[in-house]
Amino acid sequence: MTLSAGFLGYRFMGQAHANALARLPMFFPDAPDVERDVLVGRDEDALAEAVDQFGFERYATDWTEVVDEVDVFYNLGPNNLHPEPSIAALEAGTHVFCEKPLAHTLDAAERMADAAAQSDATAGVAFNYRFIPAVQYAKRLIDDGAIGDVHHVRAEYLQDWLVDPTAPWSWRNSAEVAGSGALGDLGAHSIDLAQFLLGEEVDRVSGHLKTFVDERPVPGETGDALDAAGDASTETRPVTVDDAYTAQAEFESGAMGLFEASRFATGHKNGNTIEINGSDGSIRFDLERLNELAVLTGDDRGFQTVLVTDPDDPYVDHWWPPGHVVGWEHTFVHENYEFLTAAASGDPHSPDFAAGLTVQRVLDAIEKSSDSGEWVTA
Amino acid sequence: MTLSAGFLGYRFMGQAHANALARLPMFFPDAPDVERDVLVGRDEDALAEAVDQFGFERYATDWTEVVDEVDVFYNLGPNNLHPEPSIAALEAGTHVFCEKPLAHTLDAAERMADAAAQSDATAGVAFNYRFIPAVQYAKRLIDDGAIGDVHHVRAEYLQDWLVDPTAPWSWRNSAEVAGSGALGDLGAHSIDLAQFLLGEEVDRVSGHLKTFVDERPVPGETGDALDAAGDASTETRPVTVDDAYTAQAEFESGAMGLFEASRFATGHKNGNTIEINGSDGSIRFDLERLNELAVLTGDDRGFQTVLVTDPDDPYVDHWWPPGHVVGWEHTFVHENYEFLTAAASGDPHSPDFAAGLTVQRVLDAIEKSSDSGEWVTA
Amino acid sequence: MTLSAGFLGYRFMGQAHANALARLPMFFPDAPDVERDVLVGRDEDALAEAVDQFGFERYATDWTEVVDEVDVFYNLGPNNLHPEPSIAALEAGTHVFCEKPLAHTLDAAERMADAAAQSDATAGVAFNYRFIPAVQYAKRLIDDGAIGDVHHVRAEYLQDWLVDPTAPWSWRNSAEVAGSGALGDLGAHSIDLAQFLLGEEVDRVSGHLKTFVDERPVPGETGDALDAAGDASTETRPVTVDDAYTAQAEFESGAMGLFEASRFATGHKNGNTIEINGSDGSIRFDLERLNELAVLTGDDRGFQTVLVTDPDDPYVDHWWPPGHVVGWEHTFVHENYEFLTAAASGDPHSPDFAAGLTVQRVLDAIEKSSDSGEWVTA
Amino acid sequence: MTLSAGFLGYRFMGQAHANALARLPMFFPDAPDVERDVLVGRDEDALAEAVDQFGFERYATDWTEVVDEVDVFYNLGPNNLHPEPSIAALEAGTHVFCEKPLAHTLDAAERMADAAAQSDATAGVAFNYRFIPAVQYAKRLIDDGAIGDVHHVRAEYLQDWLVDPTAPWSWRNSAEVAGSGALGDLGAHSIDLAQFLLGEEVDRVSGHLKTFVDERPVPGETGDALDAAGDASTETRPVTVDDAYTAQAEFESGAMGLFEASRFATGHKNGNTIEINGSDGSIRFDLERLNELAVLTGDDRGFQTVLVTDPDDPYVDHWWPPGHVVGWEHTFVHENYEFLTAAASGDPHSPDFAAGLTVQRVLDAIEKSSDSGEWVTA
Repeated sequence: MTLSAGFLGYRFMGQAHANALARLPMFFPDAPDVERDVLVGRDEDALAEAVDQFGFERYATDWTEVVDEVDVFYNLGPNNLHPEPSIAALEAGTHVFCEKPLAHTLDAAERMADAAAQSDATAGVAFNYRFIPAVQYAKRLIDDGAIGDVHHVRAEYLQDWLVDPTAPWSWRNSAEVAGSGALGDLGAHSIDLAQFLLGEEVDRVSGHLKTFVDERPVPGETGDALDAAGDASTETRPVTVDDAYTAQAEFESGAMGLFEASRFATGHKNGNTIEINGSDGSIRFDLERLNELAVLTGDDRGFQTVLVTDPDDPYVDHWWPPGHVVGWEHTFVHENYEFLTAAASGDPHSPDFAAGLTVQRVLDAIEKSSDSGEWVTA
Repeated sequence: MTLSAGFLGYRFMGQAHANALARLPMFFPDAPDVERDVLVGRDEDALAEAVDQFGFERYATDWTEVVDEVDVFYNLGPNNLHPEPSIAALEAGTHVFCEKPLAHTLDAAERMADAAAQSDATAGVAFNYRFIPAVQYAKRLIDDGAIGDVHHVRAEYLQDWLVDPTAPWSWRNSAEVAGSGALGDLGAHSIDLAQFLLGEEVDRVSGHLKTFVDERPVPGETGDALDAAGDASTETRPVTVDDAYTAQAEFESGAMGLFEASRFATGHKNGNTIEINGSDGSIRFDLERLNELAVLTGDDRGFQTVLVTDPDDPYVDHWWPPGHVVGWEHTFVHENYEFLTAAASGDPHSPDFAAGLTVQRVLDAIEKSSDSGEWVTA
Repeated sequence: MTLSAGFLGYRFMGQAHANALARLPMFFPDAPDVERDVLVGRDEDALAEAVDQFGFERYATDWTEVVDEVDVFYNLGPNNLHPEPSIAALEAGTHVFCEKPLAHTLDAAERMADAAAQSDATAGVAFNYRFIPAVQYAKRLIDDGAIGDVHHVRAEYLQDWLVDPTAPWSWRNSAEVAGSGALGDLGAHSIDLAQFLLGEEVDRVSGHLKTFVDERPVPGETGDALDAAGDASTETRPVTVDDAYTAQAEFESGAMGLFEASRFATGHKNGNTIEINGSDGSIRFDLERLNELAVLTGDDRGFQTVLVTDPDDPYVDHWWPPGHVVGWEHTFVHENYEFLTAAASGDPHSPDFAAGLTVQRVLDAIEKSSDSGEWVTA
Repeated sequence: MTLSAGFLGYRFMGQAHANALARLPMFFPDAPDVERDVLVGRDEDALAEAVDQFGFERYATDWTEVVDEVDVFYNLGPNNLHPEPSIAALEAGTHVFCEKPLAHTLDAAERMADAAAQSDATAGVAFNYRFIPAVQYAKRLIDDGAIGDVHHVRAEYLQDWLVDPTAPWSWRNSAEVAGSGALGDLGAHSIDLAQFLLGEEVDRVSGHLKTFVDERPVPGETGDALDAAGDASTETRPVTVDDAYTAQAEFESGAMGLFEASRFATGHKNGNTIEINGSDGSIRFDLERLNELAVLTGDDRGFQTVLVTDPDDPYVDHWWPPGHVVGWEHTFVHENYEFLTAAASGDPHSPDFAAGLTVQRVLDAIEKSSDSGEWVTA
């Protein structure tokens, strides 16, 4: 069986998923065959070029015509474009793989999760960092009880690409389009990772959002190109999302959580870190060194710096010998392998839209808490 | 002029300060001469031994007789013993150097600060980590504007000595004696460091305290020895303080802060770390590698790992050549040098009791916030 | 123009290069088109499977028939198969891309370099680590004079896969097939990296080779599968190559070099590190963290940990945003891009067979020095 | 019993040992009592000041008068002053503690070892880095078989204080006074550490010495002050020692060694590192992080970063709680404790002059090998 795929979105995420599909046959030969069928967008010149570069058959400018023509619909658009196309696809019985966060609002996320629950199609949310070998290895350790009962989680996601106040406005600065800023873009990863690794949900949070720069120059170009850096402009647009957030959390088990993300953390490019301390051990992960996991268990006197590249480490037998490290993009290969295998077989996929919704509830609770100054149950 | 010194307390902190006094003449020859006069405590056998080992003249069992006999009174007792002896000494015109946190309650801290304000004597609070060369170097950089305006502070202080539920009860587990747990013992350092480095105060906080183990076995011995590990006991006492805390903070300037301390952070022995991100750079410090400072400024593409052991680094010219690292105890030498120099000259010392009070206000606000679930102004 | 490619070898290196070719169109659209035409080997079943998995058209079992049928001949066989097929291909005017080390003997390497010099075809040797963004960035810095005159080079390549004496025998343990052991397999990389980064050659060396385990069990399977781990066997074969080597070197400029490689360095999986100290700065690289370069230049007080993932870093604009790291396999994409571009245009490629020969001369000198106990000019 | 001590030398090493003696009573109460009696030197003003600062009773300008007046003679002078005073003291029955390297020539070292063998007094050589808790802990692990049979040792000692060609000439640049340069000053530490940790001797070496800067300006002052940085001078003196050395070694067991030291390793202040790879594990140590040991044993998948500050770690129970790190100078306290205890009891001390001689033989062999270009048996 060959699955035909249609992508809404053909830039950063489009290339990341197209690359993943292109690589599956050589490295995951048991993955379902996928035909890269159609790219959906607005700019026909750019679409035509992307179709060629990414190995697709064609493009379309109206997603409503596409969602039931393909077997798998990849929703890679801005957050506010996640709900309607995804729901339409699911209602048409089309599998949906949607980028994170699930939606720009909690209400939209709930409607998406409802649609997924009522559809026979497979719905997945693309929390790709679950599929890093080192993260899967951490999950194994935690599930095996190697660190005991969890007392602490601390997860940061630090970047610095907006610390320059003249960095251009993009849709990621718009509440209407993105829902939130660092919170939804980066914090969603942290919260999902934490809930995934602990195997439990955040119960309640106290959050704090902040916007350091209130308006930013509009780039010279318009339309889809807005998120590319353009020439300096005298025109500005308001930044209506957070530049950074922090949150305290309590998990169902009583474990304490501390979360933070920023686009103003000078010196950090993609500093997605998580540390978990349990009664019998600890683990620590850093996306910038994604082949490594720091592990302390049993009688260890210090954290082991483990290079998670051995043949029996998760996914590694598909790649290279020990010490031959993989990169960021491999996370997309792994998540596509899992999602497509589930879609083809009808087995459930994790993380599904329900998992995406649990993250969205935490994001929403953090925002509400920041507004009210009180703890909010997620 | 020789200053006579009396210590209330003669165990861990007593030895740390006695050692500092003993080392000043060789390494800080311009420091005032100090006579180690009297140790105050309850256990006469232990006192006699400590007098001998620490180079004191005598011991006493009643601090009320001592506070006006000496020139400098070191208050190194449990937190609930900080107020009365310190106030009595200040009222007697005796200089007071008090261990942190300033007191076990905000009320007591306020009374101590009042007493200091009304006394001609010098009152200092022993936030020793200010006096690490790497921290002083960070302060220089920040004051010189090298990292620009501060957006983020994150400070953790992680230990794991209570993660074993059979670890014995000590006064550090008693709210009556210690005031709070990880918060006052470790968090006080984090908050002082942050306020010192930024040169501004925490404005408001949202805090979260947690006690993971509610009662602990009483050690076999009694009295002063309670804080030493004793034999397992069937008798237990309640833990009435926090095992861990987290806090979100907003500084006066609008900078965001994130704080955490724990005695349950498996794998961490003395992990007192602080990172500050500014508009033009960042610094990061870790007490377990206290000779180093991670610095990113100007056009740097990554954090520099700076070994702060050059002759023109703070305090280093008193010690050894580049790369010959100092240890934890050197912080006590430096702070004693500064405090005693101030006391002898009548110049103000920093941090004074007012600085200790600003920390105590934050500690208190974090506790109140944890109780109320709302942000509290410090 | 489309170049047809034939590979001699279809296992580890075969997959690495096939993957590189498959990825070029999406990420390096200006690369020449390449048709994956033919795989050459002995085991027809395995070949048929590899043809399918790696996207080739066909297989062949006799390289002599292939070398002039394709435009580009990839020599990915054991070292002793490097000379004849490569020479035959070059004589047929076929471009040749040959894995490192260039050959199993100095004599063979000289014949190969002669053949390349006399051919109009492009001959490249696959020192892939030159094409890591961080290494190219280091080269830029050094060429720009950022570290001044070089005084020291130290390069280690540490693995541990043979420390278990029951690890099976493979062709890599045979002098007849491999030429040397850790020296040729790992040391060749170190020496090439050093000569590349310094832009000069090793002048003379003093070397030391050692074999810790003299014989190893033969795996249960035969033929091509010998280098896969097989069942324990009572049959053993002699290890006729080095398990580890060390070397002292002097470069033409007088810079001092220190080299080492081992398959017995417990705890190291792929620890290919190089540090260069110059009069004005230093750089340090570690393959296990291949997205990073440690750099100290100008007034830096410590090494900067630079994440070499910015858009203006070498090759990075072809991939992902800052902080989205690449992996080991990307080095193959980059080197294939460079080699194929050169082959298609007729421009020279670097490293060519002459560069491979300079490395081989050093390898040979190290072996001779180990035998004679004297320094040997390379 | 109180031992009286006389020091030849009162600058860097004088202060380091004076400090050690001053600290023993508080931290090692069972150490013999020591009276700091006499400092020996040439500059009476400087001596008088040092007597006062270091807590001595008096000074002398002629060591011949002192060596039999004291119980313990500390030889802290330049290397060429090690032999005669040490021998005279030993002949007088005075205990001798001599700085490293044992002497400036192999002949002198042999005479010193002979004198020690024939004296009832205790003779120790001050290889202080043996007495770091992390190094002693490594020794315990190795002696317990935790890393199995050793295959590899690599030890570097990197500094950069001479990379500036205008850095002033000092006695450390004189072959006549120092014997050798980086080799004897730094390499002696590496070789002793390696021999100590392995419990066996270097059998043979191949060495390489280099002097990058042939002459250096003479500082403005004269006499003892020559090794302090003085004003630039038009007068220069020749550098007659090595700025850097490398060596390959073979130990008695067949283990391979690689050694290097430099005063031209830009970016390194005191980078004394050693790594040992055995059949069952590995250890790695770095003096700039002297409280840590990287350890891989048993089933460990990566190196543990162990903070060697637990109460049952070597010497740690004398100091502070876990995570409260010690500094460089503590190595002197520990070695003085051991040496003085041995001297007082008559028990043998390790390292003794015989151990110093084994190091000197290796130093000499490295020099000879560098001259001859051949391997030399140590």
